[in-house]
Amino acid sequence: MKIGIVMGSDSDWPVMKAAAEAVAEFGVPFEADVVSAHRMPVEMIEYGRQAASRGISVIIAGAGGAAHLPGMLASVTPLPVIGVPVPLKYLDGMDSLLSIVQMPAGVPVATVAVGGARNAGLLAVRILGVSDAGLRERMEEFQVRLKEQAHAKGEKLRAEAAEL
Amino acid sequence: MKIGIVMGSDSDWPVMKAAAEAVAEFGVPFEADVVSAHRMPVEMIEYGRQAASRGISVIIAGAGGAAHLPGMLASVTPLPVIGVPVPLKYLDGMDSLLSIVQMPAGVPVATVAVGGARNAGLLAVRILGVSDAGLRERMEEFQVRLKEQAHAKGEKLRAEAAEL
Amino acid sequence: MKIGIVMGSDSDWPVMKAAAEAVAEFGVPFEADVVSAHRMPVEMIEYGRQAASRGISVIIAGAGGAAHLPGMLASVTPLPVIGVPVPLKYLDGMDSLLSIVQMPAGVPVATVAVGGARNAGLLAVRILGVSDAGLRERMEEFQVRLKEQAHAKGEKLRAEAAEL
Amino acid sequence: MKIGIVMGSDSDWPVMKAAAEAVAEFGVPFEADVVSAHRMPVEMIEYGRQAASRGISVIIAGAGGAAHLPGMLASVTPLPVIGVPVPLKYLDGMDSLLSIVQMPAGVPVATVAVGGARNAGLLAVRILGVSDAGLRERMEEFQVRLKEQAHAKGEKLRAEAAEL
Amino acid sequence: MKIGIVMGSDSDWPVMKAAAEAVAEFGVPFEADVVSAHRMPVEMIEYGRQAASRGISVIIAGAGGAAHLPGMLASVTPLPVIGVPVPLKYLDGMDSLLSIVQMPAGVPVATVAVGGARNAGLLAVRILGVSDAGLRERMEEFQVRLKEQAHAKGEKLRAEAAEL
Amino acid sequence: MKIGIVMGSDSDWPVMKAAAEAVAEFGVPFEADVVSAHRMPVEMIEYGRQAASRGISVIIAGAGGAAHLPGMLASVTPLPVIGVPVPLKYLDGMDSLLSIVQMPAGVPVATVAVGGARNAGLLAVRILGVSDAGLRERMEEFQVRLKEQAHAKGEKLRAEAAEL
Amino acid sequence: MKIGIVMGSDSDWPVMKAAAEAVAEFGVPFEADVVSAHRMPVEMIEYGRQAASRGISVIIAGAGGAAHLPGMLASVTPLPVIGVPVPLKYLDGMDSLLSIVQMPAGVPVATVAVGGARNAGLLAVRILGVSDAGLRERMEEFQVRLKEQAHAKGEKLRAEAAEL
Amino acid sequence: MKIGIVMGSDSDWPVMKAAAEAVAEFGVPFEADVVSAHRMPVEMIEYGRQAASRGISVIIAGAGGAAHLPGMLASVTPLPVIGVPVPLKYLDGMDSLLSIVQMPAGVPVATVAVGGARNAGLLAVRILGVSDAGLRERMEEFQVRLKEQAHAKGEKLRAEAAEL
Repeated sequence: MKIGIVMGSDSDWPVMKAAAEAVAEFGVPFEADVVSAHRMPVEMIEYGRQAASRGISVIIAGAGGAAHLPGMLASVTPLPVIGVPVPLKYLDGMDSLLSIVQMPAGVPVATVAVGGARNAGLLAVRILGVSDAGLRERMEEFQVRLKEQAHAKGEKLRAEAAEL
Repeated sequence: MKIGIVMGSDSDWPVMKAAAEAVAEFGVPFEADVVSAHRMPVEMIEYGRQAASRGISVIIAGAGGAAHLPGMLASVTPLPVIGVPVPLKYLDGMDSLLSIVQMPAGVPVATVAVGGARNAGLLAVRILGVSDAGLRERMEEFQVRLKEQAHAKGEKLRAEAAEL
Repeated sequence: MKIGIVMGSDSDWPVMKAAAEAVAEFGVPFEADVVSAHRMPVEMIEYGRQAASRGISVIIAGAGGAAHLPGMLASVTPLPVIGVPVPLKYLDGMDSLLSIVQMPAGVPVATVAVGGARNAGLLAVRILGVSDAGLRERMEEFQVRLKEQAHAKGEKLRAEAAEL
Repeated sequence: MKIGIVMGSDSDWPVMKAAAEAVAEFGVPFEADVVSAHRMPVEMIEYGRQAASRGISVIIAGAGGAAHLPGMLASVTPLPVIGVPVPLKYLDGMDSLLSIVQMPAGVPVATVAVGGARNAGLLAVRILGVSDAGLRERMEEFQVRLKEQAHAKGEKLRAEAAEL
Repeated sequence: MKIGIVMGSDSDWPVMKAAAEAVAEFGVPFEADVVSAHRMPVEMIEYGRQAASRGISVIIAGAGGAAHLPGMLASVTPLPVIGVPVPLKYLDGMDSLLSIVQMPAGVPVATVAVGGARNAGLLAVRILGVSDAGLRERMEEFQVRLKEQAHAKGEKLRAEAAEL
Repeated sequence: MKIGIVMGSDSDWPVMKAAAEAVAEFGVPFEADVVSAHRMPVEMIEYGRQAASRGISVIIAGAGGAAHLPGMLASVTPLPVIGVPVPLKYLDGMDSLLSIVQMPAGVPVATVAVGGARNAGLLAVRILGVSDAGLRERMEEFQVRLKEQAHAKGEKLRAEAAEL
Repeated sequence: MKIGIVMGSDSDWPVMKAAAEAVAEFGVPFEADVVSAHRMPVEMIEYGRQAASRGISVIIAGAGGAAHLPGMLASVTPLPVIGVPVPLKYLDGMDSLLSIVQMPAGVPVATVAVGGARNAGLLAVRILGVSDAGLRERMEEFQVRLKEQAHAKGEKLRAEAAEL
Repeated sequence: MKIGIVMGSDSDWPVMKAAAEAVAEFGVPFEADVVSAHRMPVEMIEYGRQAASRGISVIIAGAGGAAHLPGMLASVTPLPVIGVPVPLKYLDGMDSLLSIVQMPAGVPVATVAVGGARNAGLLAVRILGVSDAGLRERMEEFQVRLKEQAHAKGEKLRAEAAEL
C-alpha cells in the first residue's frame, strides 16, 4: 500500500510536494519520481504497467500544458490515477486542466484543482480509506481539525472586524 | 461495498445513468437518488454523513452550473467523492467543471470530463479495485476489450480508407 | 437590521472588508465571520437557517474557486444573499464567478463583480433602503458624491491633458 | 411595492417572462416594459430616476451582448437593480454576463445566471421579504416545496434506476 | 474638427493618453475629460448629445470592466465612437472588450484592442482623413515611417542573430 | 464617396450583406467583392492600396477564424477599415474577434460585434457623416426611428405582460 | 514516402478523411488507421517507433478532448507529427486544441485549426515538398487554383450584390 | 537548406531566439529578420514569395495579438510555415494562438505552443529530417538525451523526496 507520485519534470516538484506531504501526514508511504510521458514514453508505460505489482495502490500524476502523463498512465494501469493540473507560465493552468480532465470514455483520470496537489494527496488517502477503517477515521479527525481551524480563523476575523 | 450515485435532479439522469451502467457492468451494486444541495441541503448533508456507515464506498455526484453537490458531499464524508460536470444549456459545462474541480485545499473532489458519467463509474470501480484483486483483474480485462474494440475499428477504417 | 458578512477563510478578509466598510459608511451595523461551506458545513447551514431570526437582513458571502458558500447559504435562508467572487491565484476569479452566479432556478444569489466586495456592501444598503427611506436618501447623496468626485477627476484630467 | 421588469427588446420577453411569473407566484405586483439603453437612452434614464417615486421597489433588467441596461439603471436609481444576462446567438451569454456583473465600485448590479430570469424574480421577492415577514414566510414555504419536489423526483429516479 | 477623448476615471489616463498623443502627432486638436457612464450618467448623455454641435468629430471613449461608456455615447450621438477596452486588475480586459464590442444592431462602436488607445487615436485620424486629403497623406507618410522603423529593427536583429 | 465591402469568400455574404443593406438604406453607394487575404494576397494588397484613389472612403472587411483580411487591408490603406468577425462552425466567433481586434499599435481596425455586419454599415455611414451634415442628420433620424420602434415594442410587451 | 493518418477512433474519420483526400489530390500515398493512445498505448508507441522505418514520412494524428495521440506519437518518432484537434460534443474543440498544441519544449506537434484535417493534409504535402520540387510546384499550382476560385466567387458575389 | 526565422518586431526576439538556438544545435543554418505583416506588407509578401528560390526550406514566423504574419507568409509560399504565438501583455497569448492556428482550409500553418519557439526550431529540424537521414538520426539522439536528462532529474527528485 503505497502512493506513487510522479511528474514530468523536477520543476513540478514545488507544486507536487504538497501531495507527498499530505499522504505523509496520514502515515501513508509514498514514492516520488520523474516519469515523463514525452521524454521517456516507454519507461512511463512500464511505470504504469508495473505499478500495481510493485505495491502501488494509487498513482498521483502532475503535469502542465499538454498534460498527457495522468491520462497515459491511466491507460496502462487498472489503478486509480489522480491528475494534478500544474499551471505553466501562460494560460493559468486552463490548458493543463482540460488536457487532464477531458479523458475519453473508458479511461478515467480523477482530476483535482489547478495546482491542487495537496488535495490529490488527500484524495489518495480517501481512496485507501475505502478499505482501511483506521485511515478513514483519521480522515474524519482531519476534517474535524479543518473545522477547528476555521473556527479559530473566525475568532480572529471577528476581532479584526470589530476594530473596523 | 456499494456505489452511491446522486444528482441534483432527475433531469440529470440521462447523463448520469452511464455511471450506473458502468458499475453494473462490473457487478458492483449501486444506488441512485436525487440529492440536491440547493433544494434539500439538510438531507444532502445527512446523505453524506451517513454514506460510509450505510455501506457506501464511493459517492458519484453529478451536477450542473453552480455545481455544489460533489464538493458539499465531500465536506461531510471521508469517502472519495467523484464529481461529474453536467453540461447545461449554455456555457458547455465549463461552469459545471470549474464549480466542481476548483475545490479548496482540504476537501478533494475527483473530477471527470464534462458529461463523463461513464468514466465516473469506471473510476469508482478502479477505487474499489485497490483492495479487491478480482475487480482489478476485471478492469484489466475491460482494458483488453477496449484495445480489441479499437483494433476492430482500425480494421474497418482501413477498409473505408482504401476505398477513398 | 444587520448585515452578515461571511467568508470561507480569514484570508478572504483583505478583499471582503471593503463590504464591511461600505455598510459602515451608511451606518448600517454588520457582523463578520468565517463560515466555511467546506470546512464547517453543518455550522454553515446553521448560520444560514438562523440568520433571519438572529436579526440579519442580508447576507454577503465571499468565496473563491469552487465557491459554494453563497449558494449554500441561499438554500437555507429566505433572505437575499449577495455573493462576492474572490479571485484565487489562478484563473482570475472566473471559476469563483461561475460557481457563484450560475445557480439553478429556485435559489438565487445576487452576484457582484470579481473582487467586488465594496459593491456587495452597497447592494446590501440598497436592499435595506427598499423599506428605509432614510437609507435610500443617503444612497442618493452617495451617488451625488460619486458624481462630484468624477467631476473633480475631470478637472484634474483636463489640466494634465492640457500639458500634453 | 411593485417590481419593475424591463428589457431592451420584446425579443427578450421569452426569457424574461419567467421573472414576471416568479413574482406573480408570490402575489407581488409587477410591470413589464421595453426600456432600451441604446435605443432610448433618455427615456431609460427617466425610467430609472422615477422608479422609486413611482412605487417601484426593485428593478429587474434583462439584456444581452454589450448589456448596458442593468448597469445604467443602477446608476440613476438608489433602488436595488437585478441584472439578467440574456444569451445571444453567439458566445452563450458570456458577453452578457461580464457586461452586467463587472460593474465598477460604487454602482452595484445584483447579477443572476445566464438566462436566469426566474431567479431574478425570486431574488426580488427575497429583497421585499427583508421588510415583509409574510413574504419571507412564503419564501420559506416555497423552499419547502422545492424540497418536496426534489424528494418526488428522487422517488421516480430510484424506480427508474432499479430497472437498469 | 476636434477629437473628444473621454474615460470613466482619471485612473484610465495612463492608458488613454496614448490616444491623445497619437492625434496630437497628426496636429489634430483634441479635448480630454472624465465622463463616467455610471457616476454621472446625465452629464454623460449631455456630453454625447452636444458633441457634434460643439465641433467634435469623433469620440474616443475608454472604459474597463462593465464598460458602458462607449456604447452609451454611441446611442446619443450620430458621430463615430471609438471604444478602448481598458484592462482591469482581473480578466485581462476580456470583460472590457466584450462589453464594448458586442453592441446590438443599430448602435455601432468601433472597438480597438485591449489597451489599444494609440490605435484609437490613429483610427480617429483615419476617419478625419476621409474628407481631408492632407491628413490622409500624413497617414500614408506615417505608414512609411512604420515600415522604415521595422526595417531598422530588422537590421539590428540580423546583427544580434549573427552573434548567436 | 463609396463603401468597399469585402470578404474572404462568398460564403460570408449571408452575414455581410447586412452591411450592404445598411449603407444602402442611407443612400450611400457601395461595392461588394471577394478579396481573400489567404487565397489572393497580392490582389488583396492591391485592393487596399488602390481603394482611396478609386474613390472608396471606408472599407468594411468580414472574415472568420484566423481573420487576417481587415488587418492586412488596414496596413496598406490610410482609410478607416471596419472589421466584422464572422463566426465559423466552432468557437462562436471568438477566434475571429480576437484575430481582428487585437491589432498592434500603428494599424487600427474598427471592430464590431461577432456577426455584426449591420453595425459595420452603420459605422461607415457615421464616418462619412463626419464631413456630411446631411448624412449625419439622417443618422439622427435613424436613431429616432430606433427609439420609436422600441416604444412600439414596449406597447406590445405591456399588453402581453398584462395577460400573464 | 507515405503519410500515416491515424486517429483514436473510427468516429473521427468523418473529420479526418479530409486529410486523406488532400494528400490523395497531390498523388501522395497514405495509410489510415485507428491508433488510440488510451485504448492501445503499447501499439500506439510501436506505431510511432516503427513509422520512419516503415517508410512513413509524416504522421497526421487526429484526436479530441484530452487529445494525447499527436503528442505521444511525437515523443517516439523523429518524424514531423501534425495534430488535428477534433471537436467533441462540448467545448467546441478548445480542449482538443490546447491538449495538442501546448506541448512542452523538446517534443513539437504541428497543430492545425479545430477540425482542420484538410490543412493537415496540405501541410504534410508542403513538408514533403521541401525535398521534392515537383510536389512544391504542384502546391504552387494548387495555390493558383485557390486564387482562381476566389476570383470566381468574387464574380458571383458582385452579381448578387448588384441585385441588392 | 536554410531556416528563415522572422518576426514582426525585434521585441519578439527574446522569445524567438529559442527557435534559432534549436536549429543551430542541429547544425542547420538559419537567417533571422524582422518581417512585419502590418508595417511592411509588401516586403512581407516578397519575403514569402522569394523564400523557396532563396534556398529557404522552412519558415518560422512569430507574432503576437492579431498575429497575421505566419498565415500571410503561408499564403504566398509553398513551403511549410511554422507559427509561434508570442504572448502579449494581456490575454496570455490566447489571441495570438487563435489568430495563428485557425487558418482557413487551403492555407495551413503548423502552430506550436504559446511562446513555444524552441519547439518551432525542433519542428523545422524534423521537417528537414524527412529527406535527411543524418538529421533524423541526430533528432533521435536528441530524444535519447531528453530521456537521460529526465532520468537525471528523477534521481535528484527521489533524493529530495526522501528528505521530506
